[in-house]
Amino acid sequence: MILAAGEGSRLEQVRNGTPKPALKLLGLSLAERTITNCNAAGIHRFLVVLGHQADQVRAHYQEIASRRDCDIKFVIAEDWKLGNGASALAAADKLDDAPFLLTMSDHLIAPSLIEKILRAHPEQGEICLAVDRDMAGVFDVEDVTKVVTLDGHIVSIGKSLEEWDAADTGVFFCSDALFSGLKRAHEQEKHSLTDGVRDLAEAGKVNAVDVTGEDWIDVDTPEAFGEARRRLLASLTKGNEDGYVSLRLNRPLSTRLSAHLATTRITPNQITVISFLICLTGAGLLSVGMFATGVIGGLLVQAASVIDGCDGEIARLKHLSSPRGAWLDTVLDRYADMAVALAITLAFAAVHPGPLPWIIGFLAAFGFILASYVTKEFGIRTGKPYPNDVLNRLKRRDLRIFIICLGAVVARPFEALMIAGALTHICVIGIFIKGWKRSASPGR
Amino acid sequence: MILAAGEGSRLEQVRNGTPKPALKLLGLSLAERTITNCNAAGIHRFLVVLGHQADQVRAHYQEIASRRDCDIKFVIAEDWKLGNGASALAAADKLDDAPFLLTMSDHLIAPSLIEKILRAHPEQGEICLAVDRDMAGVFDVEDVTKVVTLDGHIVSIGKSLEEWDAADTGVFFCSDALFSGLKRAHEQEKHSLTDGVRDLAEAGKVNAVDVTGEDWIDVDTPEAFGEARRRLLASLTKGNEDGYVSLRLNRPLSTRLSAHLATTRITPNQITVISFLICLTGAGLLSVGMFATGVIGGLLVQAASVIDGCDGEIARLKHLSSPRGAWLDTVLDRYADMAVALAITLAFAAVHPGPLPWIIGFLAAFGFILASYVTKEFGIRTGKPYPNDVLNRLKRRDLRIFIICLGAVVARPFEALMIAGALTHICVIGIFIKGWKRSASPGR
Repeated sequence: MILAAGEGSRLEQVRNGTPKPALKLLGLSLAERTITNCNAAGIHRFLVVLGHQADQVRAHYQEIASRRDCDIKFVIAEDWKLGNGASALAAADKLDDAPFLLTMSDHLIAPSLIEKILRAHPEQGEICLAVDRDMAGVFDVEDVTKVVTLDGHIVSIGKSLEEWDAADTGVFFCSDALFSGLKRAHEQEKHSLTDGVRDLAEAGKVNAVDVTGEDWIDVDTPEAFGEARRRLLASLTKGNEDGYVSLRLNRPLSTRLSAHLATTRITPNQITVISFLICLTGAGLLSVGMFATGVIGGLLVQAASVIDGCDGEIARLKHLSSPRGAWLDTVLDRYADMAVALAITLAFAAVHPGPLPWIIGFLAAFGFILASYVTKEFGIRTGKPYPNDVLNRLKRRDLRIFIICLGAVVARPFEALMIAGALTHICVIGIFIKGWKRSASPGR
Repeated sequence: MILAAGEGSRLEQVRNGTPKPALKLLGLSLAERTITNCNAAGIHRFLVVLGHQADQVRAHYQEIASRRDCDIKFVIAEDWKLGNGASALAAADKLDDAPFLLTMSDHLIAPSLIEKILRAHPEQGEICLAVDRDMAGVFDVEDVTKVVTLDGHIVSIGKSLEEWDAADTGVFFCSDALFSGLKRAHEQEKHSLTDGVRDLAEAGKVNAVDVTGEDWIDVDTPEAFGEARRRLLASLTKGNEDGYVSLRLNRPLSTRLSAHLATTRITPNQITVISFLICLTGAGLLSVGMFATGVIGGLLVQAASVIDGCDGEIARLKHLSSPRGAWLDTVLDRYADMAVALAITLAFAAVHPGPLPWIIGFLAAFGFILASYVTKEFGIRTGKPYPNDVLNRLKRRDLRIFIICLGAVVARPFEALMIAGALTHICVIGIFIKGWKRSASPGR
C-alpha cells in the first residue's frame, strides 16, 4: 500500500505543478523509484491511495505498471486533506487478510530495508515499523518522526519528542490492526498516520524492526530532494569492480555525465553503441599516423572509455539493467580494443617496414582479449568470479586505454601500445598461475 | 562392502599372475575402477573381503586408498575357497547397523546405477538387488545370474533358470538380513552368495530395484574384459560437445591413441603441454614459408589438435579430471591459435608487402579468440552454457585447425587462414545475435 494522496507543498518550487509522485529524480519519478525498489524486494502487487491531483497521479502509476512487472490498483481518499491517516483509512476495505507493506510515494527506500521488515511477522492485532537507530545519520532531523522504543516495542511516537532513540522510516508491515488504530484516532479528530500508530503504540501493539544502516530518505523538501540525488549518484561508485583509472578519472567524470543523461530519453544500449562509435572514430584517427590526428584520436578513445561507464550507470539509475546490455557492452568492448590496437600498429608499420611492428601489435591485441578471457574462464573453472585484485585491476580496459591515450598525446602511441600489451600479458600469466593454484586437482 | 576374495581363474590368461582386482583395464585396475565408481556415487568408506592372494590384494587397495579420497578396511575370509557366500559371511560382524552396498571387485558399475539402488531403502530383514530387465542387452547371457520377479520381489534366482525376467547385476543394498540368509544356506552346505539370496528370496525378503538402461558388466572372462574395454573407449565419444572434424576425424584417432596412452604413466596435463609444443613446432614450420615445411607444419598442427583430445580422454578413463587440467588446456589452446595465425601471416607477409596481409591475419586471430570468448560470455550472461548448435560447431577449434592443415597441404595456408577467420567471425556474429535475443531485458 502506497500513500500518494498528499500535496507535497514543500516541494512546490521543485515540482513546478507536476504531482509530487510524478516528480523526476535522475530520470525516474519518485513513484517509479518506490515501485522498482519494492519490485527488487519481491513485491509486485500494489494498492495506491490517491487524493491530490488524483487523475494525474493515477495516470502516472498506470504508465509505470505498463512498463514494470507489477499490478497496481487504486483507491481514492476523499478525506485526504484531513491528513495521511485519513488517506490510509480509505484503503481499509480494499486489502485482503494478508499482512501488507505500507510506505509513502515520496520515500526512497533501499530494497534491502524492505526485505528486512518483510522478515518480521506482525501478529494479529499488531503492526511493525522499521526504525533507524543511527540518530546522527538521519537526514533533516527536525522534520523526522521520532520514536521511543522499549523491549522491541514502540512506546511513544511524534515529531516533537524531546527524548527519542530511533527514527520512524515510514515503512510499515501491517495487519488489519492499523485501520483500528486509525479509526480510533479518527473518532478523536486526529487524522495523521502517526496518530493512528500512537493509538496502537499505547496498547503495546507496534513492534520496532531495526533497519539501522539501510538507506532511506523522505523526499519532502528541496534539500531532501538534493540529498536523494546525491546519494543515488554516490551509489554508482559503490560495489563496482573498478580499475585504478576508472576509480580516479573515468568514474567521477562518467557519473557527472550520467546525472545529465539520466534526464534524457537516451537508453543504456544507445550509450554503449555511441561509445563504441567514438572509439572507432578515435581508432581511425590514430591510424593516420600524424601527431595532431593521433592526439585527437587518443583523446577520443579515452573519452569513449569514460562514456562507456555511463551505460551501466544509467541502467542502474533507471532500473534498466539487463543481461542484454551487459552482453552488448562486453562484445563491443572487445571489437573496440581490437580496432585501437590495429590502428596504432597500422600507423607505426607504415613508417617502420618489416614484420616486427606487426608481431608486436598482434601480441598486444591478443593480450587485450586474452585478459578478458582468462578471468571469465577462471570463473567457469573454479566456480567463483575472479577477485578484483591487483592483477585484475592492472589488466582492465580503463588502464590500457588511458596508457594509449597518454602515448598518443606525447606522440608515442605505438610505444604505449607495447607497454599496455606487455602489462596485460604479465597480468594474464599471473592470473593463469593463480587459477592453476586455485584449481588443484583433488585426485593427485 | 566389496568382495575381492575369489581367484578369477577364468581370467588367468589375461592377468598373468596378477591378482584379479589389481588387473589393469585401460590404465586403472578393476579394484580402482570399482572404488572410483563408488566415489562418484558418494560412497567413500569401504570394507574389502580378502581371500586369494590376500596380502597382494590388500596392498593394492591400500595404494588406492592413499590416492583416492576414501577409507578402506579389510577382513580376511578364511573360507573363501568354499564360495563367495562364505567370503561375504566373514564380514558379518565387521559392519555397523546402517544398510550397506555390496558389490564385487570385478564388476564395473556405472555410478548412476549405484545412485539408483541407494535411493531404495531395504527394510529391516530385507535386502535389495539391482536387476536389469534388458535381457537381450546383457553381456554373456549364459554366465549371468538370472532372477524371476513378482510384484517387485525376487521369487527365484540362479544361473540356470529356464524362464527369467531380469538379470542380477551383482549390486546389493543390504540390511543385516543378508548374513542371516547366508548363515542358513551355510548350514545346508551351500556357500555361494546366490544361495544366501535364494534363502531370503523364498521368504519374500529380496526387493528388485530396476536399473535397466544403466551400464554394468561382470569382468570374469577375457571376452568380458574386452567388452569392458570397448565400452570404456566408446564412452569417451559420448556426451562430448564435439565439432564436425572432431567427431569424424580427431575423436576416432584420439581414442585409439588414448587407449595406448592410458596404459603408460603419462598424465593428462603432460599430454596438454606436449600437444601445445607440437602445435608451436608446427607454427614454427608454417612461418618459414616454404611448401615442404608448410605441409609438415600443417600436419603437425593437425596432429596436435588430435592429441589435444587425449588429455581429456585419459583424465576420464583414469578418473583424473580436474578443473586445473581444463584450465591449462583452454589457456594453452588460445596461445596455440595465436601462434598459428601469427606464423602463417608472417610467412605470407614476407612475400606480399604492405599492411593488408597483416590486417587479415590480425582479424583472423582476433576471431579465433573471440569465438571462445563469446560462448563463455554467453554462459555468464544468460546463466546457461551456449548450446552445441551449428554456429558453435563451425567456430570450434577442430574445424579451423583442419582448414588450416588442408590449406598448408595445398600450399595455400594464408588463404585457409582467411577462410577460417571469416567463418569464425560469421559464427561469432551469429552467436552474438542469439545472445542478444536470449537476454531480452525485462524492463523494456
